[in-house]
Amino acid sequence: MSETADRQASFERRVPEGDDRSRLVCRDCGYIAYENPRVVVGSVCRWEDRVLLCRRAINPRRGFWTLPAGYMELNETTAEGAKREAWEEARAKIELLGLLSVYNIPRLSQVQLIYRAALVSPDVEAGPESAEVGLFEWTAVPWDEIAFPSVRWALDHYRAGAGEAGQKIESNPPGEWGDY
Amino acid sequence: MSETADRQASFERRVPEGDDRSRLVCRDCGYIAYENPRVVVGSVCRWEDRVLLCRRAINPRRGFWTLPAGYMELNETTAEGAKREAWEEARAKIELLGLLSVYNIPRLSQVQLIYRAALVSPDVEAGPESAEVGLFEWTAVPWDEIAFPSVRWALDHYRAGAGEAGQKIESNPPGEWGDY
Repeated sequence: MSETADRQASFERRVPEGDDRSRLVCRDCGYIAYENPRVVVGSVCRWEDRVLLCRRAINPRRGFWTLPAGYMELNETTAEGAKREAWEEARAKIELLGLLSVYNIPRLSQVQLIYRAALVSPDVEAGPESAEVGLFEWTAVPWDEIAFPSVRWALDHYRAGAGEAGQKIESNPPGEWGDY
Repeated sequence: MSETADRQASFERRVPEGDDRSRLVCRDCGYIAYENPRVVVGSVCRWEDRVLLCRRAINPRRGFWTLPAGYMELNETTAEGAKREAWEEARAKIELLGLLSVYNIPRLSQVQLIYRAALVSPDVEAGPESAEVGLFEWTAVPWDEIAFPSVRWALDHYRAGAGEAGQKIESNPPGEWGDY
């Protein structure tokens, strides 16, 4: 889609010929604007015996704690995206150690790729989307103030060793799809 | 974005306030149409000592052999998408055995999630996007007529046991990003 087409596009929702699903189709040129699931990339970042959490400064779930994670951008890799999010949300420089888990939230058409990571230093501070950031020992994690079910899954899976040498990476707990 | 908004949207490309990247922004209502990387879901499907390949009936790479794989749809899971693609492209009913690999093709803003799978039966036939389908022993795989680099990666990684019990899942071979 050229920039000119972007500016003039006038879409309607219909099933294109040869397809079996409703799509956004430009009335003028027939261009089909496919709508795609979104990829969230993030990490469980460790410094010694503590994990990095960020208290959200924005909705949804403002005030609750989350992992550094967010939507993948065009033309980056999942690993680059996870590092970028750690920087944007917690000014954290991290080294990725491998994949921890792949979660699906089909209600939101979301695929989450969460990495195991090590902080390069314990110097972290809140980025613009975080109210505060902190390094928590397991016993100090604010379990009652976790922002999303998948954050809890990732912390539990990390703690159980998912993705470590010889251990499989994890996916959604059975029957759970990220609803509250 | 409501259906009415879809039909009237008139987008321009600019950096929204508080952002650091150019986005498609509606001139009328300010709605930001984020563009997202796309998720490809697929599988290496085995029946006894043979793997399933599909000869492409469509471009790109018409006439070359590929795995059953394609773009994930809204509101499905990666596992559901991989099963759907096996059915659409090869009329194959499959059982997923676990994740094999996660590949990144940043030039195309593509993330590929490839599963290890077993065919429920050897009855396969070409779907509308395949010219023919076949079950190949390793020595019979048409290596010179493989459609995409990531298909070769997946076959190699499958053969090496990636994702099996105690073995890690794979990602891009070092320095390879899916270019020819």
